[in-house]
Amino acid sequence: MPTNLQIHLDNRPAGEATADNFKLVTSQTPALADGQVLVRHHYLSLDPYMRGRMNDTKSYTAPQALHEVMGGGTVGEVIESRSDKFAVGDKVVGMGGWQQYSVVDAAAPGALTKLDTSRIPLSAYLGAVGMPGVTAWYGLLKIIEPKAGETMVVSAATGAVGSAFAALSKSRGCRTVGIAGGPDKCRYAVDELVFDACIDYKLHPNAASLSRALKEACPNGIDGYFENVGGMVLDAVLSRMNAFGRIAVCGMIAGYDGAPLPMSNPALILLNRLKVQGFIVSEHMEVWPEALQELGTLVATGKLRPRESIAQGLETAPEAFLGLLKGKNFGKQLVKLC
Amino acid sequence: MPTNLQIHLDNRPAGEATADNFKLVTSQTPALADGQVLVRHHYLSLDPYMRGRMNDTKSYTAPQALHEVMGGGTVGEVIESRSDKFAVGDKVVGMGGWQQYSVVDAAAPGALTKLDTSRIPLSAYLGAVGMPGVTAWYGLLKIIEPKAGETMVVSAATGAVGSAFAALSKSRGCRTVGIAGGPDKCRYAVDELVFDACIDYKLHPNAASLSRALKEACPNGIDGYFENVGGMVLDAVLSRMNAFGRIAVCGMIAGYDGAPLPMSNPALILLNRLKVQGFIVSEHMEVWPEALQELGTLVATGKLRPRESIAQGLETAPEAFLGLLKGKNFGKQLVKLC
Repeated sequence: MPTNLQIHLDNRPAGEATADNFKLVTSQTPALADGQVLVRHHYLSLDPYMRGRMNDTKSYTAPQALHEVMGGGTVGEVIESRSDKFAVGDKVVGMGGWQQYSVVDAAAPGALTKLDTSRIPLSAYLGAVGMPGVTAWYGLLKIIEPKAGETMVVSAATGAVGSAFAALSKSRGCRTVGIAGGPDKCRYAVDELVFDACIDYKLHPNAASLSRALKEACPNGIDGYFENVGGMVLDAVLSRMNAFGRIAVCGMIAGYDGAPLPMSNPALILLNRLKVQGFIVSEHMEVWPEALQELGTLVATGKLRPRESIAQGLETAPEAFLGLLKGKNFGKQLVKLC
Repeated sequence: MPTNLQIHLDNRPAGEATADNFKLVTSQTPALADGQVLVRHHYLSLDPYMRGRMNDTKSYTAPQALHEVMGGGTVGEVIESRSDKFAVGDKVVGMGGWQQYSVVDAAAPGALTKLDTSRIPLSAYLGAVGMPGVTAWYGLLKIIEPKAGETMVVSAATGAVGSAFAALSKSRGCRTVGIAGGPDKCRYAVDELVFDACIDYKLHPNAASLSRALKEACPNGIDGYFENVGGMVLDAVLSRMNAFGRIAVCGMIAGYDGAPLPMSNPALILLNRLKVQGFIVSEHMEVWPEALQELGTLVATGKLRPRESIAQGLETAPEAFLGLLKGKNFGKQLVKLC
């Protein structure tokens, strides 16, 4: 029974989350019961939604419990099995949490999925071919419903969701414009991802300035917007939406710490007959097979080559996570666990 | 050729609209050309959307032109005809504007519609069985899509749209709660319209206070909201929306003068996976026949008996209109022209 490093939520943030909210704990993996498997995690996924779960407020998921392992998506390998569903050596994705190992009831529906790593790298199943990819797919295809020739915009453009969004949007014939923080990310978005243009929001002191940049990058206005950040970026994009535009609201990372960020001019929703819709991809499991099929093909054929930021070792997870909330990551943020 | 009193837009408001923005003008009705009819207006409809058109800003309709007759819906009687489509004596509804008479090309599609006043009073075609009624119908049935047992809320509850909304919502088995200004309107909403409860927003100094009142009136939360006002009321309702709630945005009257009113916490759209959608009923002419059929039956059978505020004479239209923007009207605001 291997020693299992874990990170627990020790206390809840008052305002901005800090490293002190987390606690590194050493435990032992328990012996397996019938039907269980032991998974050694290779990668842990860090995602913005985890910040919301650190608060003890009504939300779409129960809050992260105090003094328990932080929840999170993991990929890894079955190293011990008392289930006939999984064999030692199987590569799997699950919700193993912020720890090195997890014990999983193999029969629980959706708890663990076997992966084919012959054409798709293991870590991609936490990004482009996992929850972030399906998130982009759902928002684009089920809420925005793009038409060829329309203009699509996504914030946090070089992240796991943004990069998948761009590949999906371009393949449907849409002009695709990103918003990201800093010249390196913007260059990467255009040179290595498939964005037609990318705007560095850090160059803009306010929504009016960002709105002018959007006008230049989107000469025909904006028909679809995939919202990851909120605040000033949302205000600026709203000011450029075309009549009958659609906004898929996936995240509002800018408001996760502290006071809510307002939307300055909601009357634009009426003025331009917009549809603004929030969604949580885990509530739409029915689309995952179709979405993963398309996303897997994009990755396997090299049409979607998302970048990864990889922190080394479980101990680094809190710092990497706090960096993610500030946009310090570049591409999908992972923690390599072995 | 009768003398025709008109009200023109003389200049645009800087902030709040005032009576000085309007000008009373005396003109003559021109002689009819072939295919034209002369309509004598009985009633002029005053509606909040007219305030938006007084500004010279990009919107869903062209701004009201300066030094021309203010646009607006009218019902009246054909008093002279050079068209075989209409006979003298026909009762009609059209967009005659703020004036006593209009000359209409009878062949222009949708310009003039003949009315049956045997079961439905003429003025109702500007309210419950006209644009406001269809507005309520579209927002409820095409955007909110109510299910029996759900809770629906509408602001400006005793107005032309709100009263139609209540009749339609109740007939679909929904708990229906209004928000209105003052004890008289709230009593009327419950005693004479079909609201289950009505909240007087004037009793509440802020959104938190109004939110508490909504919690009491809507013990199961809010599934659908028909938005007519914006500002504090929108913030309060948002805080009580259930997961997968729908908000039809029809008006934001509170923000028509001056600076836009923000939405305090747009992250609730994500948190509760809401759909917030703006619409303009004139862009959905395909639903009008079905909607008017249902609304006409509700009125003819006494199930919808909306109240009217009737100002006397064209000269009173500006003051009545400014009062409407402040909620001084009680029910559908009309101006009686003859």
